[in-house]
Amino acid sequence: MVPEPITDIAHLGHLEITSKVPEKSLWFFTEVLGMTVSAQSGDSVYLRCWDDYEHHTLKLTAGKRTGMRHMAFRTRSPQALERRVAALKGSGFDIGWTDGDVGHGPAFAFHDPDGHRIEIYYETEWYQAPPELRPALKNQAQRFPARGANVRRLDHLNCLAADIKANREFFETYLGFRLTEQIVLDDGREAGMWMTCTNKTYDFAYTLEAHGHKGRFHHLTFALDSREEILRAADIYLENGVHIETGPHKHAIQQTFFLYAYEPGGMRVELANAGARLILAPDWKPIVWTEAERRKGQAWGLKTIESFHTHGSPTLEEMLEDIA
Amino acid sequence: MVPEPITDIAHLGHLEITSKVPEKSLWFFTEVLGMTVSAQSGDSVYLRCWDDYEHHTLKLTAGKRTGMRHMAFRTRSPQALERRVAALKGSGFDIGWTDGDVGHGPAFAFHDPDGHRIEIYYETEWYQAPPELRPALKNQAQRFPARGANVRRLDHLNCLAADIKANREFFETYLGFRLTEQIVLDDGREAGMWMTCTNKTYDFAYTLEAHGHKGRFHHLTFALDSREEILRAADIYLENGVHIETGPHKHAIQQTFFLYAYEPGGMRVELANAGARLILAPDWKPIVWTEAERRKGQAWGLKTIESFHTHGSPTLEEMLEDIA
Amino acid sequence: MVPEPITDIAHLGHLEITSKVPEKSLWFFTEVLGMTVSAQSGDSVYLRCWDDYEHHTLKLTAGKRTGMRHMAFRTRSPQALERRVAALKGSGFDIGWTDGDVGHGPAFAFHDPDGHRIEIYYETEWYQAPPELRPALKNQAQRFPARGANVRRLDHLNCLAADIKANREFFETYLGFRLTEQIVLDDGREAGMWMTCTNKTYDFAYTLEAHGHKGRFHHLTFALDSREEILRAADIYLENGVHIETGPHKHAIQQTFFLYAYEPGGMRVELANAGARLILAPDWKPIVWTEAERRKGQAWGLKTIESFHTHGSPTLEEMLEDIA
Amino acid sequence: MVPEPITDIAHLGHLEITSKVPEKSLWFFTEVLGMTVSAQSGDSVYLRCWDDYEHHTLKLTAGKRTGMRHMAFRTRSPQALERRVAALKGSGFDIGWTDGDVGHGPAFAFHDPDGHRIEIYYETEWYQAPPELRPALKNQAQRFPARGANVRRLDHLNCLAADIKANREFFETYLGFRLTEQIVLDDGREAGMWMTCTNKTYDFAYTLEAHGHKGRFHHLTFALDSREEILRAADIYLENGVHIETGPHKHAIQQTFFLYAYEPGGMRVELANAGARLILAPDWKPIVWTEAERRKGQAWGLKTIESFHTHGSPTLEEMLEDIA
Repeated sequence: MVPEPITDIAHLGHLEITSKVPEKSLWFFTEVLGMTVSAQSGDSVYLRCWDDYEHHTLKLTAGKRTGMRHMAFRTRSPQALERRVAALKGSGFDIGWTDGDVGHGPAFAFHDPDGHRIEIYYETEWYQAPPELRPALKNQAQRFPARGANVRRLDHLNCLAADIKANREFFETYLGFRLTEQIVLDDGREAGMWMTCTNKTYDFAYTLEAHGHKGRFHHLTFALDSREEILRAADIYLENGVHIETGPHKHAIQQTFFLYAYEPGGMRVELANAGARLILAPDWKPIVWTEAERRKGQAWGLKTIESFHTHGSPTLEEMLEDIA
Repeated sequence: MVPEPITDIAHLGHLEITSKVPEKSLWFFTEVLGMTVSAQSGDSVYLRCWDDYEHHTLKLTAGKRTGMRHMAFRTRSPQALERRVAALKGSGFDIGWTDGDVGHGPAFAFHDPDGHRIEIYYETEWYQAPPELRPALKNQAQRFPARGANVRRLDHLNCLAADIKANREFFETYLGFRLTEQIVLDDGREAGMWMTCTNKTYDFAYTLEAHGHKGRFHHLTFALDSREEILRAADIYLENGVHIETGPHKHAIQQTFFLYAYEPGGMRVELANAGARLILAPDWKPIVWTEAERRKGQAWGLKTIESFHTHGSPTLEEMLEDIA
Repeated sequence: MVPEPITDIAHLGHLEITSKVPEKSLWFFTEVLGMTVSAQSGDSVYLRCWDDYEHHTLKLTAGKRTGMRHMAFRTRSPQALERRVAALKGSGFDIGWTDGDVGHGPAFAFHDPDGHRIEIYYETEWYQAPPELRPALKNQAQRFPARGANVRRLDHLNCLAADIKANREFFETYLGFRLTEQIVLDDGREAGMWMTCTNKTYDFAYTLEAHGHKGRFHHLTFALDSREEILRAADIYLENGVHIETGPHKHAIQQTFFLYAYEPGGMRVELANAGARLILAPDWKPIVWTEAERRKGQAWGLKTIESFHTHGSPTLEEMLEDIA
Repeated sequence: MVPEPITDIAHLGHLEITSKVPEKSLWFFTEVLGMTVSAQSGDSVYLRCWDDYEHHTLKLTAGKRTGMRHMAFRTRSPQALERRVAALKGSGFDIGWTDGDVGHGPAFAFHDPDGHRIEIYYETEWYQAPPELRPALKNQAQRFPARGANVRRLDHLNCLAADIKANREFFETYLGFRLTEQIVLDDGREAGMWMTCTNKTYDFAYTLEAHGHKGRFHHLTFALDSREEILRAADIYLENGVHIETGPHKHAIQQTFFLYAYEPGGMRVELANAGARLILAPDWKPIVWTEAERRKGQAWGLKTIESFHTHGSPTLEEMLEDIA
């Protein structure tokens, strides 16, 4: 009989990103996307969507480069956290315990094979809305903002990585993530992976870094309720001079409806209607996309834009500067 | 340290319902809702939504009464099935193993404290679409029908029960379901419960049977992607002479957007946009609604319709006939 | 051969309403509905929706009572204005010329048989957005606000009147409005009329005043693009403590999707998705609704709420006070 | 004082198109778009959308080439028809009276400066739905089909023409259409025009024929109620193997949300949510788009696809064959 799956990770908790223009990035996340500031500390601002239950889901930190500093996953229980730490310790990926941060307790840090920093934690602070942000319905974390794009929750992230297979095996082995879809090139190399620890079709994706760098970031994604809201967000981007890279359109992979734009610091931000499609099957068989299939473009025929294969955070130019 | 939660049940698998006018009910499910027949056997027709991954999610059987004959949940693994069976055996709720049915393997049957029949199983047949129903995208089970309301998937069910607390404790103890929201009356009695084993906010609900009967059924629910699709379904109900009981409107509890109608056999069918709101927190604290709060009506003020507290399957008249 | 129709009135231009709590009403129109202030003068604030092309479409004036002070229609040409004035002069309905107001030129005032004041004008000021409100697309009057319900344009109004037939004939004869739908009671009395001078299915409605008063107002209506936006507006009303009277639901008459609420001054405000359905036929035959048909309720079965037959501006209580 | 505008044309009535694969085209219009056959005669099938009030809005005729055979406009009155005929007679554009066709009475035929055939008529047959297609609401022409894309009404058409200015002046002078938006090249030549005779922002468009031909057709357009329905139509096209040329996206010009595909005969068909935006101003000042502005692409940045400038009906290859 097949061994039972690991189900210790509950969900993506938050991301820390850096911006080289932090004030402008803050304007984007609060005024254009409609997020709320829940705390400030040092060079960092803690932000949240109206339906996020934790203190924050985005930590925005001033930095020399725009990039993703760490991603954090919450475990299903204290015991689950202990089990994952036990597995990671001595694996060569482990960094060690941190004291935690505003909004959550002790976290164990490690890195993936490509070098992205990851933390896992259990103890967290449930968001308590101040009076002016209290919702009318008690089963909601915070009042609906009615401002900008009104993003509902942090949905997923996408890293670039030089060796997709190594990263996939890492997340399967150490954290129990399940692969739901992937791209496999004609030469057998894996070029993209979509993994989940929930009933969402993915909690993160990794796609191929074609330029020999490590640790770059592709995008973070916020969920909205409907495709109509994403179209409206495109109108709002247009009015605010936000650069739309591609979309709105429907992905063939995972079938999410997407809109990609760059926030002022240059980081790609996706809005998607994640939620309508769920993966309920405990034994989902990964969907494998071939090069020929990918050449057909997105679901309704839109071709993948060239910058999608090059633009990341940091940029290629910045990576070269840092090396030099 | 708190013991870890049971996570053995993966999701609601299917329902068997009976109809006293089976041909008319079949017309409703296929032509009005847009479901597909995947098999027929004896007095039963097996039906599915286009995004359901299993062979079927609804078994429609001719019967003297319209009612719910059994609900079935799929476990997360064979081992999980064994654990649940071990817990149930000798509990007084157990009925025993069945050989399975069209589309799934051996199932263990039992009943809840109110007498509704439940089955759990692991082995299942993944749906294989015939050529004319093959989808354009390989990550989809079946072609989008473009017919009637185009229901996406079976979402949840709602039973009536005389003792909500007893049923809640049964599902928590024996199956590991988590309570997400509940109604507690001023006298302390529980009057409604919403429970989940997924990231959906609930996979079933039980509400109070106010008429002293046992085993009645309130409604089954199909998920659609957006509120707009539910409004369109209301238009389609209107054109087809389907009785709309209440809605479309937004529930205060769980915040789903709902539309309730009666299929020709008299069973209440709900369409809802389940999916946008997810419960990701592994330690979600149940929301408790009071009588005073319920008197405010639904989210935007619609009062709960009287028939919602009386109409079920079988009807009150039928229950009395059966007793007489 | 039938005489040709009068086509001198181009569209509803604006409404002047009074509020007994003008600051709160202003908060509602700007923060909850998302309107923009284009001018202030004396006790009046001039407001506009982002897609209105004229200087303003709503004049909000402080008053002892909440009510509708005048409605104004723009004519198709200066000659059309002259023709209508010639017809009205000496009719007994005429009041006379005014110098105009902020945003428009000379207007000719008169009253309908029920006593509501009406003005017609041609000269108008096209809205010029200040730099911070300039839209990204040059075919749009003003930047999309991304605030509150984001109402698109003033759509129509609804007066109460004691004698519907007299008012219908007045608007047909003197202004060339066409009747598109009406309610006729079993005793032959007209109880509601929906009239248009555009391709919209109606630019105003009059419904029966059942309480013997004259000059009362029922509601004004703003248009949104989609039913989804109206549902979102209901969420926003909920969060802001705005009283929702009835809806969202679909009218049987005219098939608009509606949401009725009371602004802080007590005036009923409707949000509707006017626009999808147009009347293109130049010889449209009015749809006549009977009492029996009206008893069926709205399109999907919602019963008309009692307050819909009593609540108006001013209220019944205020009318009695004013008489006393 | 400026002379008053001509308002004799009420709306676009119908189009006759030819298909070289008429059975497949019929499948597309009925099964994929959800239109209804209202009559058949000879090589022609008469089709309608559920909200069209006339007998038909599309006449589909078998032909050697796919193309547009004639467009027809209904006048506002019999007198209006007489006035337009009087203006056209002897103009050099006139062809003469026809006896009419299935569904409408005598029509006067003429051609525009590019050679497209146009007819105007007043007498028409209002559609009478057979029992199985009768709607639930009496203010609707036909039951909502709940099949395929459920197109609501014929919205507009787009011809190619070698001399846009000549055609604009023709429609202004002889028929009273108003220009709402246009493209003017840097050298002063007009390259596109959008004209209306209703409150819709346009009833037809003409864009520049860059290949020296005459009489070619670019696309016809059906209206849907919401952007969400157009996205759903894209899903339906995908499932049915219909070639999507470009979209869904939002036009900068006129701001309609569009989806372009080719029906089996090769004719471009657009689905759009025309209706939300209306032009109410009787003195609308045409919006002029420059080459620089057009280079920015569509509203959210999508670049205009190359085939949009070449593909028409008949095709360039067919035009050359016919000449040879």
